[in-house]
Amino acid sequence: MTASKGPVLLTPGPLTTSDRVKAAMLRDWGSRDPAFTRLAGEVLTRVRALAGGTAEEHVCVPVQGSGTFAVEAMLGSMLRPDERLLLLVNGAYGRRMAEICRRLGRPFEAVEVAETEAHDPAALAERLAADPGIAAVAIVHCETTSGLLNPLEEIAAVVRAAGRRLLVDAMSSFGAIAVDISGWGISALAASSNKCLQGVPGLAFVVCRSDELAARRGVSVSLALDLEDQARALAGDGQWRFTPPTHVVAALHEALQELEEEGGPAARLARYTANRDTLIAGMARLGFVPALDPALQAPVIVSFLEPQEDWYDFSTFYDALESRGFAIYAGKMKALGTFRVGTIGAIDSLVIERFLAAAEAVVTELKQKLIR
Amino acid sequence: MTASKGPVLLTPGPLTTSDRVKAAMLRDWGSRDPAFTRLAGEVLTRVRALAGGTAEEHVCVPVQGSGTFAVEAMLGSMLRPDERLLLLVNGAYGRRMAEICRRLGRPFEAVEVAETEAHDPAALAERLAADPGIAAVAIVHCETTSGLLNPLEEIAAVVRAAGRRLLVDAMSSFGAIAVDISGWGISALAASSNKCLQGVPGLAFVVCRSDELAARRGVSVSLALDLEDQARALAGDGQWRFTPPTHVVAALHEALQELEEEGGPAARLARYTANRDTLIAGMARLGFVPALDPALQAPVIVSFLEPQEDWYDFSTFYDALESRGFAIYAGKMKALGTFRVGTIGAIDSLVIERFLAAAEAVVTELKQKLIR
Ligand SMILES: Cc1ncc(COP(=O)(O)O)c(C=O)c1O
Ligand SMILES: Cc1ncc(COP(=O)(O)O)c(C=O)c1O
Repeated sequence: MTASKGPVLLTPGPLTTSDRVKAAMLRDWGSRDPAFTRLAGEVLTRVRALAGGTAEEHVCVPVQGSGTFAVEAMLGSMLRPDERLLLLVNGAYGRRMAEICRRLGRPFEAVEVAETEAHDPAALAERLAADPGIAAVAIVHCETTSGLLNPLEEIAAVVRAAGRRLLVDAMSSFGAIAVDISGWGISALAASSNKCLQGVPGLAFVVCRSDELAARRGVSVSLALDLEDQARALAGDGQWRFTPPTHVVAALHEALQELEEEGGPAARLARYTANRDTLIAGMARLGFVPALDPALQAPVIVSFLEPQEDWYDFSTFYDALESRGFAIYAGKMKALGTFRVGTIGAIDSLVIERFLAAAEAVVTELKQKLIR
Repeated sequence: MTASKGPVLLTPGPLTTSDRVKAAMLRDWGSRDPAFTRLAGEVLTRVRALAGGTAEEHVCVPVQGSGTFAVEAMLGSMLRPDERLLLLVNGAYGRRMAEICRRLGRPFEAVEVAETEAHDPAALAERLAADPGIAAVAIVHCETTSGLLNPLEEIAAVVRAAGRRLLVDAMSSFGAIAVDISGWGISALAASSNKCLQGVPGLAFVVCRSDELAARRGVSVSLALDLEDQARALAGDGQWRFTPPTHVVAALHEALQELEEEGGPAARLARYTANRDTLIAGMARLGFVPALDPALQAPVIVSFLEPQEDWYDFSTFYDALESRGFAIYAGKMKALGTFRVGTIGAIDSLVIERFLAAAEAVVTELKQKLIR
């Protein structure tokens, strides 16, 4: 059987993966077989290293499921019921952390700024100084809602200087945009297989300080999402407590190999940056305006303002682009009508050029339809 | 790239899948693309039908992750905090449900019988009559710990007659051993992609009564594992709330097609039954004794007593079998030393015959090593 290829995915993940990554799923693995345990162990070690973690101080805990599962596991396992959390929100994923805390009954308060604005380290420093009852801070690194990059290193420095702990949702930045949990003093970071790591979806991770996790044994109300319990099992016999998504793990193992061969996160970031710059320049020529200030725009996904013109309608635009082989992504910003185009995955600026040609043809066609 | 094949998996899942199922993972899907939404919708509809559910009364809710995630989601979403649960335990998976209830703070009590014993419907009827405070009952259909099949239809009849609700962990039986949630009056049933459905791991389901789920809106303390919230999203725009494991879903879609072509669960059950009977007869010739009474033995996985002889040691036995191309499974019974051999997956009795030949050679070899 030869699988039909489907469109190129210009999405924030699941995204376009290489044929080689997908081919790694063509064998079955026994989940308790030593060969699989070795394969999975290599994945966890590499993900920890990519986060800037060390074997002595950090553990990479796998969470089957999607990225949200890892974020919930992080919030539920790395905070004692009495540790009040300050949530820095500027998009849907920050709000989702608030919803998780609300469900879990964990004390928190949210500082929300506009979706077009990054969080300000100085304002955070003031807030932390004014409220000694805040035990920890949480933030989304790249807010995929808009495509905005929060100044994580500066935020981390402020949190550290104030003697608090920092939890990070690095879902859409991890693997391309540098992070250093050791150097920056981050307590925990959630990531996933299917974004900048260019694996397939079904697996997420929390890389965190082993001592802080161990000290919170028993705080998770969930068995499935208990990171401490899973970390202890791994430290024991090297086993996942519950069936791992073996094929997804094998694909990620291959994807991590590919990342290394590409030259690591720095090389990947350069490629994504070229993708983004090519995209924004080309879309500008077609009249499309990004929602964000260029200084805040991560090289991950770009939100474009929806044209206020008669020819445009998202689903018509989407379908026309898809019939030309490209899947874009719907917008998610609260106050602005946007659509999104991802710049991550196994794609380079030649693919972006081809997309731009398709977009140009579609715009021309839709405008002409209007005239006729 | 041609993937190495790995051993034949004689495990309770992840198990041996067909090449065709694995090949279905060779394309990337946009998780919000209408083509994927359609594909996933077909999977949910088919799984619901396999459970005996109807579009009017039941919903099939996907849960990313492993089977345990679906069991926790079921217990956390289908019981109000005041609904006391009676748990029928005869193995590790029943005990795991108890651990989940303990974590979630849900009131429950467990009736535990030996792992070699099925639960008795008459005893249950007495217990329910004696304790009107029990709102619901939960049981594991096939206890994979031993390989025992609990008498689900009879248990369901008792629960129904007593006017209580029944929750079922059907993880290792679903897709082969018949179940009829409509006819038997079951409230909810948890299943997974990677056992008798012969898909790959990474996805689980709860098929349940829509009205009972809707009436429990807000009871889940977890966002990720909130079935009602997920069901409402699906009923709205047909979307999963969080990134679905697209490749795993595509593989399951193919596996469900394969199941239909095989002749449905009845044909699959006949094949698995032949596998089991071939296995037990052949192993008996080699001196291996099953842990269970034949009347209780499901055609899913067989627990064999570990030989109390000097040549035997699980890990030596395992490695020797694996080097001949077969991965068996460790035992999990509390009071008896066992190893397990699965009889499910894309294998038939010819494969079992080949396994028996390998086992014979291994036993001979290990006994001879002892003499030398
Ligand atoms: C920043 C961020 N956090 C969390 C998530 C949630 O991930 P998932 O959809 O895999 O649950 C996403 C997904 O796009 C994300 O971009
Ligand atoms: C009866 C039963 N319940 C639950 C589970 C848990 O499934 P998972 O390992 O996918 O979490 C299993 C797995 O073998 C099982 O057999």
